Amino acid sequence: MPHITLNPDEPGIRGLFSFRPETARPLNALVDVLLRDSNSLTPGERELIAAYVSGLNDCNYCCSSHSAYAAAQLPGGHAFVQEVHADAGSAPVSDKMKALLKIAAAVQQSGKQVSGDDVAAARAAGATDVEIHDTVLIAAAFCMFNRYVDGLATALPDDPAFYDVRAQRIVAVGYLGLLAEAQAAQA
Amino acid sequence: MPHITLNPDEPGIRGLFSFRPETARPLNALVDVLLRDSNSLTPGERELIAAYVSGLNDCNYCCSSHSAYAAAQLPGGHAFVQEVHADAGSAPVSDKMKALLKIAAAVQQSGKQVSGDDVAAARAAGATDVEIHDTVLIAAAFCMFNRYVDGLATALPDDPAFYDVRAQRIVAVGYLGLLAEAQAAQA
Repeated sequence: MPHITLNPDEPGIRGLFSFRPETARPLNALVDVLLRDSNSLTPGERELIAAYVSGLNDCNYCCSSHSAYAAAQLPGGHAFVQEVHADAGSAPVSDKMKALLKIAAAVQQSGKQVSGDDVAAARAAGATDVEIHDTVLIAAAFCMFNRYVDGLATALPDDPAFYDVRAQRIVAVGYLGLLAEAQAAQA
Repeated sequence: MPHITLNPDEPGIRGLFSFRPETARPLNALVDVLLRDSNSLTPGERELIAAYVSGLNDCNYCCSSHSAYAAAQLPGGHAFVQEVHADAGSAPVSDKMKALLKIAAAVQQSGKQVSGDDVAAARAAGATDVEIHDTVLIAAAFCMFNRYVDGLATALPDDPAFYDVRAQRIVAVGYLGLLAEAQAAQA
């Protein structure tokens, strides 16, 4: 049961967005920039970083959500995303993504865990400064979202199809778009 | 030395804000809501939570910054803030703040570390649902900011007075206001 009174029809972070719309807006604006705006990393690759960090943080809701969003936007779908969760080092990703996932795993532990060697390896595999920056900030942001969702003990959805249904809406309208839909439905 | 090329005149998160203005805006909007908007917790109390978590994460830049911002807005100033860093459990804070700082410390470890007992203690000491929510999100957000600042190995300011000078501007114009000033200075 959640630690505060939330709408039981809105599992995970959705109930928190309704509870506190003032913080929902900048939080959704942040993920729209980080995960969906024009970037040399695809939305699927960036969702994969978010899902991977959420798995390392053992956040069931965020890991299931962003794994579904990554799967909806990457050729290998759910099976590929699960390979990355199982062992990012041996999964069939590019050398650049492997190096970026290693940086993300370091950030999950602590910012200080990111070494010059980690960054040099990413750069040698073709990563740009913006890609390195965005990887660090995506990983850091999901250390926030994971703690937010679990720190208030939000509920998991009853229906396992929830995440894939939501993935289709994220792909169609983005995070701020989905927030606006939810707010309109409640008005 | 930072892991990516940043303006050497802008230490800490400032260089990151200039490097990536697209993410700077929602990040600053988030802290303005969390730390400065109208709230039953004062700006000083909320900065104290941010400083405390940044100390637990051993993030020198964020801890120094938000300790200065808290000190500028709390009667006890720097000495009081240092007592909280040294031992929040015995510092001269209200029972409610003590319970909220305990929740913040749990979030710093992991969202799952926040127990029903922690929340019940805060509520018994008078904390509202919004105060509990905001404490969890402030603590979670600084788990992001700390990783962002350290994960890219940003520089510390040369001048120790930097933080107190900046505290006066935060109090005067807020986070988005300071961001706008910085962007105007570079234009």
